[in-house]
Amino acid sequence: MIRKVNIAVIGTGRMGSVHCRNIVRQIPEAELTAVCDIRLEVAQAVADELGIQRVVRDYHDLLSDANIEAVLIASSTPTHAAIIKDAAQAGKQIFCEKPLAMDLGEIDGALAAAEKAGVKLQVGFNRRFDKSFRRVREIVASGEIGRPCILRITNRDPDFPAMEFLRASGGIFLDLAIHDFDMVRYQLGEVVEVYAMGNVLLEPELNEFGDLDTDVVVLKFANGAVGAIDNSRKAVYGYDQRLEVFCSNGTAMAGNEQEDAAIVGNQAGFLSAKPPYFFMQRYAPCYVEEVRQFVECVRNDMPVPVTGTDGRAAVVLGYAAWKSYRENRPVKISEIG
Amino acid sequence: MIRKVNIAVIGTGRMGSVHCRNIVRQIPEAELTAVCDIRLEVAQAVADELGIQRVVRDYHDLLSDANIEAVLIASSTPTHAAIIKDAAQAGKQIFCEKPLAMDLGEIDGALAAAEKAGVKLQVGFNRRFDKSFRRVREIVASGEIGRPCILRITNRDPDFPAMEFLRASGGIFLDLAIHDFDMVRYQLGEVVEVYAMGNVLLEPELNEFGDLDTDVVVLKFANGAVGAIDNSRKAVYGYDQRLEVFCSNGTAMAGNEQEDAAIVGNQAGFLSAKPPYFFMQRYAPCYVEEVRQFVECVRNDMPVPVTGTDGRAAVVLGYAAWKSYRENRPVKISEIG
Amino acid sequence: MIRKVNIAVIGTGRMGSVHCRNIVRQIPEAELTAVCDIRLEVAQAVADELGIQRVVRDYHDLLSDANIEAVLIASSTPTHAAIIKDAAQAGKQIFCEKPLAMDLGEIDGALAAAEKAGVKLQVGFNRRFDKSFRRVREIVASGEIGRPCILRITNRDPDFPAMEFLRASGGIFLDLAIHDFDMVRYQLGEVVEVYAMGNVLLEPELNEFGDLDTDVVVLKFANGAVGAIDNSRKAVYGYDQRLEVFCSNGTAMAGNEQEDAAIVGNQAGFLSAKPPYFFMQRYAPCYVEEVRQFVECVRNDMPVPVTGTDGRAAVVLGYAAWKSYRENRPVKISEIG
Amino acid sequence: MIRKVNIAVIGTGRMGSVHCRNIVRQIPEAELTAVCDIRLEVAQAVADELGIQRVVRDYHDLLSDANIEAVLIASSTPTHAAIIKDAAQAGKQIFCEKPLAMDLGEIDGALAAAEKAGVKLQVGFNRRFDKSFRRVREIVASGEIGRPCILRITNRDPDFPAMEFLRASGGIFLDLAIHDFDMVRYQLGEVVEVYAMGNVLLEPELNEFGDLDTDVVVLKFANGAVGAIDNSRKAVYGYDQRLEVFCSNGTAMAGNEQEDAAIVGNQAGFLSAKPPYFFMQRYAPCYVEEVRQFVECVRNDMPVPVTGTDGRAAVVLGYAAWKSYRENRPVKISEIG
Repeated sequence: MIRKVNIAVIGTGRMGSVHCRNIVRQIPEAELTAVCDIRLEVAQAVADELGIQRVVRDYHDLLSDANIEAVLIASSTPTHAAIIKDAAQAGKQIFCEKPLAMDLGEIDGALAAAEKAGVKLQVGFNRRFDKSFRRVREIVASGEIGRPCILRITNRDPDFPAMEFLRASGGIFLDLAIHDFDMVRYQLGEVVEVYAMGNVLLEPELNEFGDLDTDVVVLKFANGAVGAIDNSRKAVYGYDQRLEVFCSNGTAMAGNEQEDAAIVGNQAGFLSAKPPYFFMQRYAPCYVEEVRQFVECVRNDMPVPVTGTDGRAAVVLGYAAWKSYRENRPVKISEIG
Repeated sequence: MIRKVNIAVIGTGRMGSVHCRNIVRQIPEAELTAVCDIRLEVAQAVADELGIQRVVRDYHDLLSDANIEAVLIASSTPTHAAIIKDAAQAGKQIFCEKPLAMDLGEIDGALAAAEKAGVKLQVGFNRRFDKSFRRVREIVASGEIGRPCILRITNRDPDFPAMEFLRASGGIFLDLAIHDFDMVRYQLGEVVEVYAMGNVLLEPELNEFGDLDTDVVVLKFANGAVGAIDNSRKAVYGYDQRLEVFCSNGTAMAGNEQEDAAIVGNQAGFLSAKPPYFFMQRYAPCYVEEVRQFVECVRNDMPVPVTGTDGRAAVVLGYAAWKSYRENRPVKISEIG
Repeated sequence: MIRKVNIAVIGTGRMGSVHCRNIVRQIPEAELTAVCDIRLEVAQAVADELGIQRVVRDYHDLLSDANIEAVLIASSTPTHAAIIKDAAQAGKQIFCEKPLAMDLGEIDGALAAAEKAGVKLQVGFNRRFDKSFRRVREIVASGEIGRPCILRITNRDPDFPAMEFLRASGGIFLDLAIHDFDMVRYQLGEVVEVYAMGNVLLEPELNEFGDLDTDVVVLKFANGAVGAIDNSRKAVYGYDQRLEVFCSNGTAMAGNEQEDAAIVGNQAGFLSAKPPYFFMQRYAPCYVEEVRQFVECVRNDMPVPVTGTDGRAAVVLGYAAWKSYRENRPVKISEIG
Repeated sequence: MIRKVNIAVIGTGRMGSVHCRNIVRQIPEAELTAVCDIRLEVAQAVADELGIQRVVRDYHDLLSDANIEAVLIASSTPTHAAIIKDAAQAGKQIFCEKPLAMDLGEIDGALAAAEKAGVKLQVGFNRRFDKSFRRVREIVASGEIGRPCILRITNRDPDFPAMEFLRASGGIFLDLAIHDFDMVRYQLGEVVEVYAMGNVLLEPELNEFGDLDTDVVVLKFANGAVGAIDNSRKAVYGYDQRLEVFCSNGTAMAGNEQEDAAIVGNQAGFLSAKPPYFFMQRYAPCYVEEVRQFVECVRNDMPVPVTGTDGRAAVVLGYAAWKSYRENRPVKISEIG
């Protein structure tokens, strides 16, 4: 009989409910013991669907339950840091959705709490668990294609989120590009300097709150490599997720996946399918795998694959990009908090 | 509250256990009420994993249970026909794995029983539910690329099954190519004549029982189109599943999927990934979708998407191919039972 | 100073004029000494374009010229055999466009004449010189992917030739598929049996003279492999030229080339270019290379890469396919002349 | 009878000899009247190969020949400006290889001379004539995929040129990236600002003269779009030439071409061919087309497709990139001469 990790999910909205289903259906090493949401009826609906007995509105009720070993935090971003601190004090192992927080001070507080309590803290950078991006990293890390020289990422959403979401999102560098800022570190290690340019080309309303819908960011890495990321809020042909690590003895690329493998040839040429629509579809297996690995780390007391430090570093890069954009100059990462 | 279809799975081996997991985890419109296997411990293991209360050794125990509306038959092929008959007499809706039976008389008996009882009988030709093959069919059926002229299928397994399985399998035309014989009917309708050639090029042991490991089958369709299928028992680069319907105003193709989207470029060229390993991986979503549609048909009393007649027709084509191969001549489908 | 082979081109229509330009512009080892066409003005135009001094109407005038070492025959098919005989008797080295002739007796006469005279006779099966098809053959011949098991060819023209051409062409198996009948021998060696099916699905006028616009031919090879060819007279998406040799330890494929490398992504998906329009574009480099190699063989007295025997064998396969189609039975190659 | 443009080629080294062959063999509207090289034997060899009567060492001898209407300048870069001035004064139409000169003052002098004399001056930015890049531009210019937002170029050489060439080349931004600086203007129009980063990761000897082997350049366009170029001196998998213009309603990409269309599948995956080796192979048709269009413009007195202004603008961008790299700050194009 395998030892199961008793886990509670705090925040059962879009992302949290996906985690709940994944735990129940695809992670036999975990037991979903309880669900929590300040909108109790939202938590209740998930519990009903999955047959979960315990449903609470206040996450403190779960922290005092000695039977619960770990919490998965998928509540709204502004609540992350406080829940992490409380959960750490209660001795829970912690998986927290990205970003840890918008404020670096809050992040530092949360990290310190976790460290002091000696609990694990994994951050939900799901793309690290994508099979193609992993494969690129393995090939590069193996050294078989030599030294990394140029990293390129194309990360374009298929459409804008709601404007009210955007207004509170931290903007394109802290919301959309944050995944790239983690990915570049996953692939090539630390960044020392960034330069960002961008524009509002698709949705003028963004000008009201100083956000962008289009950007390019270039990066210098500690290992000497250089990189370029490009982002857009709206790629009408679908969620565009590409990566390349060009090295001294070869190149490793991750192309887009396709919704299906059908191709139609006619007088216009050959038409093939768009990519899977959005992150929920494209990265579905990653959401399972990140939590599965977290559970394994808890069961076997191993270091988690994406640490709080990783979570902080991506936010720092986001702030550096914004600073670079606003001051129109390259910004050293050391300039940020 | 949705009405759930109470369903029992008979035969919980490799395929049956997949169906059990799919029903529990991914088909909320069905309730897996009971599982049955003559190897009771096999059924018990599946029940334990999925939290199923009722576990029986003898399927008759399930047929007398008025609470069970439908059965999914995934037991060994020789038992299919008898279970269908019994289940039909008991008024159960029936989903049966392919092939219905090896003997056309047995198939006819089973079909007659289902018809007499007025119950649904769906056959498990899972590939009809593959998104790419469906897309090809939709495009062709829409008429946008004109009249079908040539159908081509490449269906190659990544490796041989166990020899003892092969000895009882009905041989390459009734075991491996049977999926293609259903697929050609799904895409282009009825076949009127086939010619088959083949050889033993990979595994001499097959000669002991007259089977082949390599074949090509050509077909004439009632609509005037022609087709060619090729099969192999062992494609070392992986499970090769391709289809093309060439039409008077274009062509529709379904290519292979890939294990991942990574590509490595070096002095040798560009290396991309193999296809997903085998049917369990490649057609995983199809196993869910075929049962989901069956459940929908039961709930809404609609005709099933793959009928007993379809199940029979594919077996007839398999026999026609064997007859053609053995007599080295084209064989009309009307020559077979 | 390189020794140049003095060559005369007999027949300066579409194909002959291409050969003339290739010799003058791209084969420095050859000197185009004279051109000949029964339509003198056609030959004159080519001569003017390329600065050729000698222009004749009657090819016999060239054969008596001791200065001419080789002739390239690109006149109409019915004249090939007689010109070969005359050129052989005159001691000229011979390159002849395909097919050698429609009548096997004529072919035999021409081959005997060349053999008796001890002159080289190369047949214009240009596709053997395609870089992708060559690469497939090299890989297969190297043994690195094991034993050949299945050969597949798709050969579809982009559109019908003129009906009056078709009426005298020998029909789909002797005109269009003849290239495939040579290609299969190039790739896998001798064929022992064929079975052909076909239909008129695109152009009813073909029924007037018993031709087909759609066919599938299956083949058994002496080495035990099996094969399938499919042909169409009209692929609206362009000239479709694909080949696969599936082997026991891998597969080697030659896909289509593309008119350009542009891809457009929009809400419909990703659209890529059609193949190069037709044989003149797709196989342009082959027309140079086959003559270049012929010239090299003449200069160094080596055996030619495509022999008269090869030219005969492809025609035999064409007749076998017609016999198979008309009698609806597999036909052994040994049944034909 | 078509009117032929009498053209002389000045400089018959690697690039010049290619132009000579192209004019003679593939541009019937031009007559190659004379060739010139300060290494007379080099010019003589080309003349012998192509049957050109007139061979001179000093280009002034050609300028006084009233029979010569146009000159194609393919001599070494430092000689370009002076030859342009002299040729313009002599009233010749001018095609000049890129770059016009390294010194902006020299370029301005040459442009002024051509303008004063009222002669055409076309610059040899061959990539504008690539069918795939043209197709991208056509699609974008048509407006069918909306407003340009992001331009991406990957331009990587397969290997380093000789070090002595590099030392005098102007460095990576004026030698390698200069093609991209023209291409971005061809695709999206004027650039207003650039930021460049780079490194020496492959060949330490470059540090001796301050050159780079790896770089990324980002650009702001006058139309609001942003762009990123990446360059390397050595891509071991071959000459990597990719371009994308991402727009508000779609994206247009130009991928790499391939040496052949063969694909080998085995236990490692699927291996496809590298790109054509280098610019002489990949852009071969462009070298013909640019001169063909120049000849057409001369014959019909039309504006040339790549002007002296275009030639100057690319050099300006190269200097801006160097300034940006050296000062590590974004540089406005208006800052450069």
